[in-house]
Amino acid sequence: MGCLEFLKDFFLGFWDYETPKVMVVKDRKLGVIYRAVQFLVITYFIWHVFISQKAYQETETRPESSVYTEMRGVAMLGDSVQDTTEYVRPSEGGDVISTILRREVTQDQTQSTCAEHYSVANANCTKDFDCTQGEMDFDGHGQRTGRCIPYYNYTFKTCEIKTWCPIEEYAVVRQAALEQAINFTVFIKNAIHFPKFKVLRGNIKPNKPKKLLRCHYHPETNPYCPVFSLGFIAEQARENFSELCRTGGIIGVFINWKCDFDVDPSECIPTYSFRRLDMRKNLSSSGYYYRFAKYYHKDGVEYRTLIKAYGIRLDVIVHGHAGRFSLIPTIINTVTAMTSVGICSIICDWIMLTFIDKNEVFSEKKFDDVFKKPSQPITTDLTLTSYGSTHSDLSDGVPL
Amino acid sequence: MGCLEFLKDFFLGFWDYETPKVMVVKDRKLGVIYRAVQFLVITYFIWHVFISQKAYQETETRPESSVYTEMRGVAMLGDSVQDTTEYVRPSEGGDVISTILRREVTQDQTQSTCAEHYSVANANCTKDFDCTQGEMDFDGHGQRTGRCIPYYNYTFKTCEIKTWCPIEEYAVVRQAALEQAINFTVFIKNAIHFPKFKVLRGNIKPNKPKKLLRCHYHPETNPYCPVFSLGFIAEQARENFSELCRTGGIIGVFINWKCDFDVDPSECIPTYSFRRLDMRKNLSSSGYYYRFAKYYHKDGVEYRTLIKAYGIRLDVIVHGHAGRFSLIPTIINTVTAMTSVGICSIICDWIMLTFIDKNEVFSEKKFDDVFKKPSQPITTDLTLTSYGSTHSDLSDGVPL
Amino acid sequence: MGCLEFLKDFFLGFWDYETPKVMVVKDRKLGVIYRAVQFLVITYFIWHVFISQKAYQETETRPESSVYTEMRGVAMLGDSVQDTTEYVRPSEGGDVISTILRREVTQDQTQSTCAEHYSVANANCTKDFDCTQGEMDFDGHGQRTGRCIPYYNYTFKTCEIKTWCPIEEYAVVRQAALEQAINFTVFIKNAIHFPKFKVLRGNIKPNKPKKLLRCHYHPETNPYCPVFSLGFIAEQARENFSELCRTGGIIGVFINWKCDFDVDPSECIPTYSFRRLDMRKNLSSSGYYYRFAKYYHKDGVEYRTLIKAYGIRLDVIVHGHAGRFSLIPTIINTVTAMTSVGICSIICDWIMLTFIDKNEVFSEKKFDDVFKKPSQPITTDLTLTSYGSTHSDLSDGVPL
Repeated sequence: MGCLEFLKDFFLGFWDYETPKVMVVKDRKLGVIYRAVQFLVITYFIWHVFISQKAYQETETRPESSVYTEMRGVAMLGDSVQDTTEYVRPSEGGDVISTILRREVTQDQTQSTCAEHYSVANANCTKDFDCTQGEMDFDGHGQRTGRCIPYYNYTFKTCEIKTWCPIEEYAVVRQAALEQAINFTVFIKNAIHFPKFKVLRGNIKPNKPKKLLRCHYHPETNPYCPVFSLGFIAEQARENFSELCRTGGIIGVFINWKCDFDVDPSECIPTYSFRRLDMRKNLSSSGYYYRFAKYYHKDGVEYRTLIKAYGIRLDVIVHGHAGRFSLIPTIINTVTAMTSVGICSIICDWIMLTFIDKNEVFSEKKFDDVFKKPSQPITTDLTLTSYGSTHSDLSDGVPL
Repeated sequence: MGCLEFLKDFFLGFWDYETPKVMVVKDRKLGVIYRAVQFLVITYFIWHVFISQKAYQETETRPESSVYTEMRGVAMLGDSVQDTTEYVRPSEGGDVISTILRREVTQDQTQSTCAEHYSVANANCTKDFDCTQGEMDFDGHGQRTGRCIPYYNYTFKTCEIKTWCPIEEYAVVRQAALEQAINFTVFIKNAIHFPKFKVLRGNIKPNKPKKLLRCHYHPETNPYCPVFSLGFIAEQARENFSELCRTGGIIGVFINWKCDFDVDPSECIPTYSFRRLDMRKNLSSSGYYYRFAKYYHKDGVEYRTLIKAYGIRLDVIVHGHAGRFSLIPTIINTVTAMTSVGICSIICDWIMLTFIDKNEVFSEKKFDDVFKKPSQPITTDLTLTSYGSTHSDLSDGVPL
Repeated sequence: MGCLEFLKDFFLGFWDYETPKVMVVKDRKLGVIYRAVQFLVITYFIWHVFISQKAYQETETRPESSVYTEMRGVAMLGDSVQDTTEYVRPSEGGDVISTILRREVTQDQTQSTCAEHYSVANANCTKDFDCTQGEMDFDGHGQRTGRCIPYYNYTFKTCEIKTWCPIEEYAVVRQAALEQAINFTVFIKNAIHFPKFKVLRGNIKPNKPKKLLRCHYHPETNPYCPVFSLGFIAEQARENFSELCRTGGIIGVFINWKCDFDVDPSECIPTYSFRRLDMRKNLSSSGYYYRFAKYYHKDGVEYRTLIKAYGIRLDVIVHGHAGRFSLIPTIINTVTAMTSVGICSIICDWIMLTFIDKNEVFSEKKFDDVFKKPSQPITTDLTLTSYGSTHSDLSDGVPL
């Protein structure tokens, strides 16, 4: 074939339409199997992909989120009043907020010298020689002066150290737990923004009157009131509040937004769930506490009140998921679905060729064997293969 | 067929090459439709998937990010100077930083007894009998002592309570807003790391002289200077600064990294956008404020200065997206593209068989009907179906 | 064809089974190429998708995570003892914790008037006329009073300003670095929860004795002890601790959970890695410091001690990835794999038709050209095309 002819052929051939040749098997049994398998696959796809997973939507997770928290409530702790300024830390109202429920207070500490605690390694002594000057024990409280002194008003002696005196273990006063805190409320304002869909949603109804903080959340009657009492949170997290007061704990407040923007965006209301985040009770180190100090000056000397605070830390965690119909994922998933229907063909082909095709009628028609290099005159050979299609037929004689 | 023969057939057959038989329709109209549909699909895929979505790249979102913030500026508030130490909280310079713009200060509070505010339920009284000792109202400030006393220097009386006295509502002093804060600047240092691509980028040009904090950000002239004035931020977020001073507000600072590592990584420069994160103005509870206290000792008694601080909280939120050419997604997306071209065949087949195929020439050639159980001599039957292909032809007589 | 007949045909046709006709090429060379390409593609898919990427699993990233940190250790700074309360900020033990390693302290500042620093623009003066009353320089410390006064006990003069006096630049005292902090330890408790798999894991072994904080982490001997010394962290992050003491720095503590829930979930143990997050040393502004103040009252006047604190900020960042066998992704990926095998056919078809098919035997058999509008008697024409398959053959004469 010449080059010109080839080009002409190519340009003519470009506008040809190619479509696979198909064998239609007029077998009722096979047809039923085929349609049944097809039906199963299609049903599964429609159900799983399009209804359960909403694959026809483009989705956006991880919206931009802003959390503002505010605690309310007062309680008496002995003779003194605890208001939010006293028990909430940090005060800035971010997505992590902690409430102090119990304090162990060491008052009037100042930098001076006093006796080390007896539980510290090598701290017990009988004479100055037992205490190396300048030594610091990692588990101790400070630097040894080299003297051995009575342990406060006890009869035994420990090494003297330079530190914030008196040491916490000796002077600490364990306050009662703030059990009334069960009625404290936390107001959680959350606004999210889905940049892709340009939708902004908040967990408070717009145009609400100012008395907002007076309500209490209820999933059905009051879904737009994000005010939760600590008791409610502990209950939802299946924790005992008194136990929490004793050891402290970290509780996750999960705000779950699941929005379908094919319906009205205003129907997109968050749900709240609560779960304890620090480890389970079989773990000894469970709980939540931290230390901080209040500093003050007395007669020119700096003093501090050391506070070991046990409390509930609330970690507000926002999950967001939104979807809206989009052509692209719909097409891609439909194509994938149709491709998967191809599995049916493989199954049915296998059934057909193995179980049903007793006389090899189907395989003869489906498969057209072609041998290379027919050195005989082309015409005859082509006729043969074109007729019977399988070499086994060839021996039977050619129908002419 | 014997078992040996079967095995021999299988081993021979394994090296056969199977390819579908194709019917080439020499119809110009159909060819043009086919190529046009194909062109549309391919163009769409190349444009959408490969150019717009860069599907030939493997991507990484959510890089490891580190944010450091620092505020600068001084302003006069009445007679006193406000420097960063005074108006920035928390001081540690993390990704959430707030500037106090307005204060409502209650000075010299101490734990004692004083009159409850008159707005609290049942706080108004005429005699001691009206006040139940030990009662605590959730919206109140403390515990009732059971006495009815004059409301400070007014003539009416309210129940006496044990709390931090005097109460905020009575003694609060509203300071003027720190309008000069519009010139305060915030320096935001951000470094990101894409672990998959092992690329580290920062929003400051390396080897920059120390005078870094003197510049101001401009998207074109100064993209490497992440110093923003509060006025610029408010303007970009389309908020009125005076209004923000009054109510406070939370503004998101979005740092967007969109990196294409197929070109030089050093061209990967972040853009900044600003958006108010707390809810819109039609919401009464909009705004941002928090309370904190400064403690001090006077004559051995603990006093506090309670501060209700309104301000701007900046939440720095980092979005990152990077891509680099990778073989795998390229292949997978190309295969998907080619599979999707299969839609053309379905459309064209349908057009061909429904509209163009008047004489059923195409359907005869495309579909090869096969019936099961040919009880007649195989040879003849096969010849027939092989010739005319459709049973309707059979009645026309076989060409021989 | 009548309507009734059409409907009958449709209902009969619905139960037909359609399968593509296939040409089997009995060519050993082509078969070997085909199988080899197929083998490569399948091997790749099995290796990459199923073994390396575990595509048979459904995965969950971004587990819910809770971090609690606690620092331990005491050190002497000159004559005073530094315990956790002194050097850790913020104290609440969240996922960002900083240790102060070096301080620059300005003591006894109070709101009054004093000389501006000489480095501030236009601050140098010789007479009052040089200082505009009420002016505020952005880089200055306060508002000018309009007077020109001696710069503290120096001979030159600068403008007097109203500010916290004395100014930091003049009165600051640079303390020595807390080099002993290299032995401080940080205890990091992390609990994660995969909601989809309902698995809860922690980085501490349950039922561990109380002496937990005494151990030190080691990837092999002690993987369940998340206690790290600052020296260990700096070393892992390839940073010099003394250098860190001098400039401060932000170090990321990465907790990586890679869980395969097809095996025992209890084998899911996190690994830890450390990397410096603020920019490299060639950047002058590298480092981490912040300012805060301690307030106190003396003779009714508010004083503050301004502290510029350099230190190490640890950002705990948790990465989680879990997988478990699931039917859906397995099927979808298998289908995709099988579709990709289709590439082999395209390659082999091209090889066959271009290089091997010298006599056009294959293309004759594979492609069945059909012309539209056969105006001649159908029978003959069909016979012809059915026989030779290509128009070039037609000129050769029909074999009969």
